[in-house]
Amino acid sequence: MKKPSIPKGTRDFNPQEVSKRNYIFSVIRETFSLYGFQPIETPSFENSETLMGKYGEEGDRLIFKILNSGDYLAKVDDVLYAEKDSNKITSNISEKALRYDLTVPFARYVVQHQNEITFPFKRYQIQPVWRADRPQKGRFREFFQCDADVVGSTSLWQEVEFVQLYDAVFSKLVLKGVTIKINNRKVLSGIAESIGAEDKLIDFTVALDKLDKIGEEGVKKEMREKGISEEALQKLQPLFSFKGSNEERLNSLKGMLQTSELGMKGVNELEFIVENIKTLGLQTSSLQIDVTLARGLNYYTGAILEVSAPEEVNMGSIGGGGRYDDLTGIFGLKDMSGMGISFGLDRIYLVLEELNLFPETISENSKALFINFGEKEALYAMRAIAKLRIAGIKAELYPDATKMGKQIGYADKRNIPFTVLAGEKEMESQVFTLKNMKSGEQFQVNLLELEAFLDT
Amino acid sequence: MKKPSIPKGTRDFNPQEVSKRNYIFSVIRETFSLYGFQPIETPSFENSETLMGKYGEEGDRLIFKILNSGDYLAKVDDVLYAEKDSNKITSNISEKALRYDLTVPFARYVVQHQNEITFPFKRYQIQPVWRADRPQKGRFREFFQCDADVVGSTSLWQEVEFVQLYDAVFSKLVLKGVTIKINNRKVLSGIAESIGAEDKLIDFTVALDKLDKIGEEGVKKEMREKGISEEALQKLQPLFSFKGSNEERLNSLKGMLQTSELGMKGVNELEFIVENIKTLGLQTSSLQIDVTLARGLNYYTGAILEVSAPEEVNMGSIGGGGRYDDLTGIFGLKDMSGMGISFGLDRIYLVLEELNLFPETISENSKALFINFGEKEALYAMRAIAKLRIAGIKAELYPDATKMGKQIGYADKRNIPFTVLAGEKEMESQVFTLKNMKSGEQFQVNLLELEAFLDT
Repeated sequence: MKKPSIPKGTRDFNPQEVSKRNYIFSVIRETFSLYGFQPIETPSFENSETLMGKYGEEGDRLIFKILNSGDYLAKVDDVLYAEKDSNKITSNISEKALRYDLTVPFARYVVQHQNEITFPFKRYQIQPVWRADRPQKGRFREFFQCDADVVGSTSLWQEVEFVQLYDAVFSKLVLKGVTIKINNRKVLSGIAESIGAEDKLIDFTVALDKLDKIGEEGVKKEMREKGISEEALQKLQPLFSFKGSNEERLNSLKGMLQTSELGMKGVNELEFIVENIKTLGLQTSSLQIDVTLARGLNYYTGAILEVSAPEEVNMGSIGGGGRYDDLTGIFGLKDMSGMGISFGLDRIYLVLEELNLFPETISENSKALFINFGEKEALYAMRAIAKLRIAGIKAELYPDATKMGKQIGYADKRNIPFTVLAGEKEMESQVFTLKNMKSGEQFQVNLLELEAFLDT
Repeated sequence: MKKPSIPKGTRDFNPQEVSKRNYIFSVIRETFSLYGFQPIETPSFENSETLMGKYGEEGDRLIFKILNSGDYLAKVDDVLYAEKDSNKITSNISEKALRYDLTVPFARYVVQHQNEITFPFKRYQIQPVWRADRPQKGRFREFFQCDADVVGSTSLWQEVEFVQLYDAVFSKLVLKGVTIKINNRKVLSGIAESIGAEDKLIDFTVALDKLDKIGEEGVKKEMREKGISEEALQKLQPLFSFKGSNEERLNSLKGMLQTSELGMKGVNELEFIVENIKTLGLQTSSLQIDVTLARGLNYYTGAILEVSAPEEVNMGSIGGGGRYDDLTGIFGLKDMSGMGISFGLDRIYLVLEELNLFPETISENSKALFINFGEKEALYAMRAIAKLRIAGIKAELYPDATKMGKQIGYADKRNIPFTVLAGEKEMESQVFTLKNMKSGEQFQVNLLELEAFLDT
């Protein structure tokens, strides 16, 4: 018989992995909650019409569709069926699809429940999503998203708060040296406008985004190829030497954008956020204006955020987000401005692993294994175990009275730090022999002492 | 535009519902962990061959199948395609399916990872499952299962431990008066054997299972119809007056089963569990032998458990489980005995709701809303909020400087218990006006006092 396997791009998680993932989830969840965000959950699959057409053509292709139940072909028109065209038949044999992200289901939730919701609505959502992407290193077909959004207000204090929230989460994870990069869609539009390239905003930002990789000359070459004039490139010069403090960067932008109303609005927004964060202070992260940041440009309308892991790990973005002006328009509810951020769980996991930042205490492992010497001894052990468990101490009995070496070996392999031995002698004097599995040390204790010892 | 909706049989959960569900999950999870069970997680979808044929014909029908990506029809043979037979085509256009329960994926996990696992393997798993059942009251197409299993040992201490575990969870949930019913497959087989109806075990147990509903005469009538003789019914008489303590019930069974080796083995197993539980004691639940219990009979080989909600709520089973002899045989790994139990989250939720047992403290709601009087005042508030959050106190700023009535109304609707007001006056003397939203009481405090007050 062939050994069973799982679909490509999916993963099994063993106990150590689950504990580590839950540690990250719980830090994010607690912080969301501390900042006033409240949890919602939506179904794993939505009606296809809710999802299709919301992520572009490529997105539609990557959505996992669920086959209708029963005799699903009976409802397909014979003429259509005869064409044998997958694209045309899909909507006839599948009416549901697995969620592709948490944003569209959230928009659907807001519209569907608008009469029960008190706006501004601060929600968080931590659930898996599914994408039929080609699996590759670090990219999976099932993965968790951790999103917080607030909708129903345009207040810039929300941008301030999300920067603080990122800092709070990474500080709790003891991941120091994170950079929170910030840009503004209006600034990018303003720049394009001021160099007379409004119609080339995407080409322009795509090229600018590569500054890190291909350098000033490379970016200019690409821009020339896209038809951006030499005169325009001249005006862009300050961007290529965009350095220094956020104040200096703001000043440089003000110089470039004085003729663009939209651009200046973007600069003022950036200034509000940067100034207030400076006054309020961050714990371990830094906030940096980065005009090359062009994430989600066809979606975000104001602030754009991206979080970079500390430089010593080569990981790239571990989170991102931005301000959008029209979350729910796709479902018929207009003018719902909002802002949201997301944490990249899988990458944060890899960073914490690489920097050895997972606390040892997060394992859900038992503190002590009681050795099983037979029925009477096991009952004696079970009485003690019941007491320990009521005190919140994780303990267990080896289920079978097999050879001691096998039982000790089990504790060893499971990394259980203590074994407890209680045979006839111990039972007579109502004590237990406690063995430290690392040092080999052994000593006798009574039940109260055992509890006190293990409860640390 | 049509208001969006979700597929039938699925649910959105609002913040209050998520908090309540998470409360139940966390009690179950902590208790699993306390008893030495460790968490694993498996993918939401499995290869179809892993799931199909494991749940019977009806089960196969209820499994949600995922459509292959891309031009999935291109691979379907033209002759087969022309038949337009849904049953025959499915396996050609779908290779993956959503998990139907947690047991088969667990069996697959054990076989796939057998070389990394230390046996006996105690695992728990809390994840959603999907079934294309006809939706009805209390039955959903997506719901969570909470399972704990141990495989690799036949020790009856595990049965004892699962009874304790049920009691521990329901005691923590302050759900008193739960009855844990226990039976044994060997006892049922023994009874069928001793009345000469081995071949009618299923008919016999199905009828016996109805004793509560249709009474002694009804059960006898059904048994007669299934061809069970009058002589056999005579022998069954003790079952119809099966009352009293577990000891009395055991004695009654011993009388009936003295000629059946298998039956006596079952009685001895029951006795071991009942006696040891009596010695060890339960906190708030009671354990009761119930020979009419026939749950999962084509699967369980030893103990059968079922948990009933307290009598005052009309809910039926809120959990169940049993001993099985061959979990992993379907995947080619023989002789892997195990025992597992499951908690019925949705029903437990309804019971706690009905008995008003959800603690008030589980809501993730903010403790205080700071009223926004404008940019300077908001910054003053944000400084205080940052301090409170570092102290672990949930607090938030109303994002916009709108009319006070609207802001207070927001706190009211969100059930936030306190509002904090700080205008120019307060800023001058570095204080805050704290308002109790329930009583309307107001008083002035400094930041330290505010923190101390809210941190309770």
